[in-house]
Amino acid sequence: MTKKISGIAASNGVAIAKAYKLVDPDLSFAKTSITDVDAEKGRLTAAFDASKADLTKIKAKAVENLGAEEAEVFEAHLTILSDPELVGAIQQQIEKDQVNAETALSDVTDGYIAMFEAMTDNAYMQERAADIRDITKRVLSHLLNVTLPNPALIDEEVVIIAKDLTPSDTAQLDRKFVKGFVTDLGGRTSHSSIMARTLEIPAVVGTEVATTDIAEDELVIVDGLNGHAIIAPDDATVAEYKQIGDDYLAQKAEWARLKDEPTTSADGVKFMTGANIGTPKDLPAVLENGAEGIGLYRTEFLYMDSSEMPSEEDQFEAYKTVLEGMKGKPVTVRTMDIGGDKKLPYMPLPEEENPFLGYRAIRISLDKTDMFKTQLRALVRASAFGTLWIMFPMVATLPEFRAAKEVFETVKAELKSEGVAFDDNIKLGIMIEIPSAAILADKFAKEVDFFSIGTNDLIQYTMAADRGNEKVAYLYQPYSPSILRLIKRTIDCAHKEGKFVAVCGEMGGDPIAVPLLVGLGLDEFSMSATSILQARSLIKNLSTTDMQALAEKALDLDTNDEVAELVKAATTNK
Amino acid sequence: MTKKISGIAASNGVAIAKAYKLVDPDLSFAKTSITDVDAEKGRLTAAFDASKADLTKIKAKAVENLGAEEAEVFEAHLTILSDPELVGAIQQQIEKDQVNAETALSDVTDGYIAMFEAMTDNAYMQERAADIRDITKRVLSHLLNVTLPNPALIDEEVVIIAKDLTPSDTAQLDRKFVKGFVTDLGGRTSHSSIMARTLEIPAVVGTEVATTDIAEDELVIVDGLNGHAIIAPDDATVAEYKQIGDDYLAQKAEWARLKDEPTTSADGVKFMTGANIGTPKDLPAVLENGAEGIGLYRTEFLYMDSSEMPSEEDQFEAYKTVLEGMKGKPVTVRTMDIGGDKKLPYMPLPEEENPFLGYRAIRISLDKTDMFKTQLRALVRASAFGTLWIMFPMVATLPEFRAAKEVFETVKAELKSEGVAFDDNIKLGIMIEIPSAAILADKFAKEVDFFSIGTNDLIQYTMAADRGNEKVAYLYQPYSPSILRLIKRTIDCAHKEGKFVAVCGEMGGDPIAVPLLVGLGLDEFSMSATSILQARSLIKNLSTTDMQALAEKALDLDTNDEVAELVKAATTNK
Repeated sequence: MTKKISGIAASNGVAIAKAYKLVDPDLSFAKTSITDVDAEKGRLTAAFDASKADLTKIKAKAVENLGAEEAEVFEAHLTILSDPELVGAIQQQIEKDQVNAETALSDVTDGYIAMFEAMTDNAYMQERAADIRDITKRVLSHLLNVTLPNPALIDEEVVIIAKDLTPSDTAQLDRKFVKGFVTDLGGRTSHSSIMARTLEIPAVVGTEVATTDIAEDELVIVDGLNGHAIIAPDDATVAEYKQIGDDYLAQKAEWARLKDEPTTSADGVKFMTGANIGTPKDLPAVLENGAEGIGLYRTEFLYMDSSEMPSEEDQFEAYKTVLEGMKGKPVTVRTMDIGGDKKLPYMPLPEEENPFLGYRAIRISLDKTDMFKTQLRALVRASAFGTLWIMFPMVATLPEFRAAKEVFETVKAELKSEGVAFDDNIKLGIMIEIPSAAILADKFAKEVDFFSIGTNDLIQYTMAADRGNEKVAYLYQPYSPSILRLIKRTIDCAHKEGKFVAVCGEMGGDPIAVPLLVGLGLDEFSMSATSILQARSLIKNLSTTDMQALAEKALDLDTNDEVAELVKAATTNK
Repeated sequence: MTKKISGIAASNGVAIAKAYKLVDPDLSFAKTSITDVDAEKGRLTAAFDASKADLTKIKAKAVENLGAEEAEVFEAHLTILSDPELVGAIQQQIEKDQVNAETALSDVTDGYIAMFEAMTDNAYMQERAADIRDITKRVLSHLLNVTLPNPALIDEEVVIIAKDLTPSDTAQLDRKFVKGFVTDLGGRTSHSSIMARTLEIPAVVGTEVATTDIAEDELVIVDGLNGHAIIAPDDATVAEYKQIGDDYLAQKAEWARLKDEPTTSADGVKFMTGANIGTPKDLPAVLENGAEGIGLYRTEFLYMDSSEMPSEEDQFEAYKTVLEGMKGKPVTVRTMDIGGDKKLPYMPLPEEENPFLGYRAIRISLDKTDMFKTQLRALVRASAFGTLWIMFPMVATLPEFRAAKEVFETVKAELKSEGVAFDDNIKLGIMIEIPSAAILADKFAKEVDFFSIGTNDLIQYTMAADRGNEKVAYLYQPYSPSILRLIKRTIDCAHKEGKFVAVCGEMGGDPIAVPLLVGLGLDEFSMSATSILQARSLIKNLSTTDMQALAEKALDLDTNDEVAELVKAATTNK
């Protein structure tokens, strides 16, 4: 029977395909005594062999679909499975304790996992624990004769149904076959959602019931435009949603025509639409979607994807690639934002009660000046290859900005004396993501070249609610008049000093927020590359004078929901 | 040789006495094999007996000086020491492993501790782990023939030198003999500091070097007025500081004369000075210090000091005691602020990445309405016995206040229909401690009866810096113009609607903050009872028009330090 479930619209579009449940099967077993040790050892070897066969297939598929780098994890698993020491230890355990292979396997691998996990300071070892856990699961599935989902082997069109998707799950998915996601957990800013938008796959997250209500192979419609999933639809419903999906694709094609056009409002006011990126690998999508610049280059991935502190040379190469790729369009690079929920395997950070209120970003950079200088040297050198803007994250006070600027000036002086070429007009700005910085925007505006509002953190601190915490997720309210007032203040103070303001948080590409930000006079909207053309199209249909009136009204409303309704009513009436 | 070390001035006054080092001695030992099992068992029994003798003395002393309740912990330790099962298990271990008593003791107690600590959801069991740890330390000290500091046995005047003081350390201190504290760690809002101010003992915290630079029995001057400690002073220095201490005491006596006077500025404007309390036990200090009301009654202690959810009757009795004790002066009760760093043994809360940005205070109350209703019923019933104001903590949005008010109205209607007497004019307010609430103060002011600014949390969220985290402690900036601007906005919006505003955070009694808050037009200053008379004296010497000009200037400065200097210059020139 047709059933409709609802969640959060996480990525636009409509998908219709059968369900592929990416859910772990029951792998529980009883500890039993055995007498035939050889037979039990044989069961174990067979399960190891079957696991190796799985992984060989999965690896080949992954190399083909995702590239050699993404497939490396499977190579690591194969190496561990082929280690005679591991299988030997389990066989000894079978013999010594006269127990079934399942029990011996768990005992031995639990020991390894505990050992690796005890090294809490060492992210590399923590990952090894995850590897052993994955392998154990696979061998166990063969011992128990149950099927483990192997997403890398998917070779027909499916909709993935999961509790939540981890980065390692999504790394295995072939976008040729994966038509959509429906998950139990997550919000608009969770990993699954961001990944869905990057891959341009329709997704509905946070349904709570997807994995229980949807059966394997059942036909599912994912309505990523409205946040619904329809299970076992009848033919009429399928036809209806095909139409909705086609209309959306037509609209996307329409948007695609805006690729090389400027972002101009209906009444002729010019804005900028830029892209947020994490690595030079994101450049093709940035160019395909006609970004007018990069509004946020998150450099922490350079640090996180490395097993040691990236050298000045490594960093220089990455920054240069992006600057050259953008051919003179402005590239705003944020200095590293490590800490909070982002750890580095090679730089132990203190254990903190509240890492989001702790030692992170510019607070680390100003403390570990050598590391900061290396990054700034690489950036200043790269400035010779394009238009570089640099901004500092998590600035709360003026002395912090002044101290960071001083390091920047020192680096420039050093490079000058070394005879290294660089652009002497690099703009220097700060993220506005801490309430204190927004409140002191008048002061900061006199000293910086530009602001970039990081709405995700700004909302989190202004509402005192961790956006990753389900219990207080309802307080993540981007349209709250308190947030809009801080944004208005930031923009007004900047413009009074003739300075430039961008938004690079989720709000930058949010169809409810964009009209308000146009009304508040924002200069640049920076977002996932795949949202740019939609935002540009939206802005083309807005009149700045109408939006100014709309924003004025919104600033004086009581609640987030009232603002959302106001904007929806105003923009649908058009 | 005389040496001066510096730290944070945590509690006013001057103390001169010899050092008592509350520092754990080295309790390390080697695992050795033994042959004479009986001799080893004898060593163990002797150490147990000596420990029992210690604890019997300590307990008697604690009952005498601190009261039966504070002494209960030692009774618990004695019970555990007298348990034949414990000593039996250790003796068996000596016999089985043929090891020294130290090793057997640690092996057995480590097992208990691990077991108790594994029950992470159970705060009661966690405390039992702490008990076992304390007892092990004591028995070990006797086995190793080293002396454990026994603060409860102090019987001459001393200055306590410690890394930091825990609540269980301070519970054992007899204020007759303890003249001052000097610690390595801590800030103005750490437990040691708050305790020192409550006990009216001079204290300097955060010196980093007190425990290394000060030797046992060395003469120490604690200058709690300026945040210094002088080690081994010469006679002239002792005389000089005696004079400073006497001057301070004379000033305190001067302040004491203000006990029954109103809080009126030099130019005749009336303010209110109130007290912050945690339990009805704080009432005597409140009355002694002439509080004009209670600006903050933290009800969470009622929940935290109990092994089960406090009943309506228990709560009613506590609230009634306070309301009656205050004889009609207003008592502002804050509904429970559990969560964050405050846990309840009988109410499991989710593990959170960032508890200060999580499920706490009103967020829990609105989720667990039964618990909230019980508290409000107890409060409304108690209102018949005095002047009750109720406020909700951690309100970020208008719908939260409206929902809380609705529960309050329901409770009143229920009690009315039950024929229970209560005051029908209870004022309802909110804490302003989340930036969003301060920014929306104009909206809230239309709906609440009063605001109370919780500066500790407001600073923490506005600066995005956990005040308990040493790495970012420098960002706890009460005089930052960003904080002052939020306070100004809160006061202006309240007054526009004819509503009342208090400050109940640390700033309420801070001599730098008070002149600014007078200038901003604050109505009530609420603080530790022991700070009230000093604040009242300070306000009596201030002119509101001068302070308005001072505050105006401060609001337009760049940094926290500039503001602090401005105020110091303006108030010392008088």
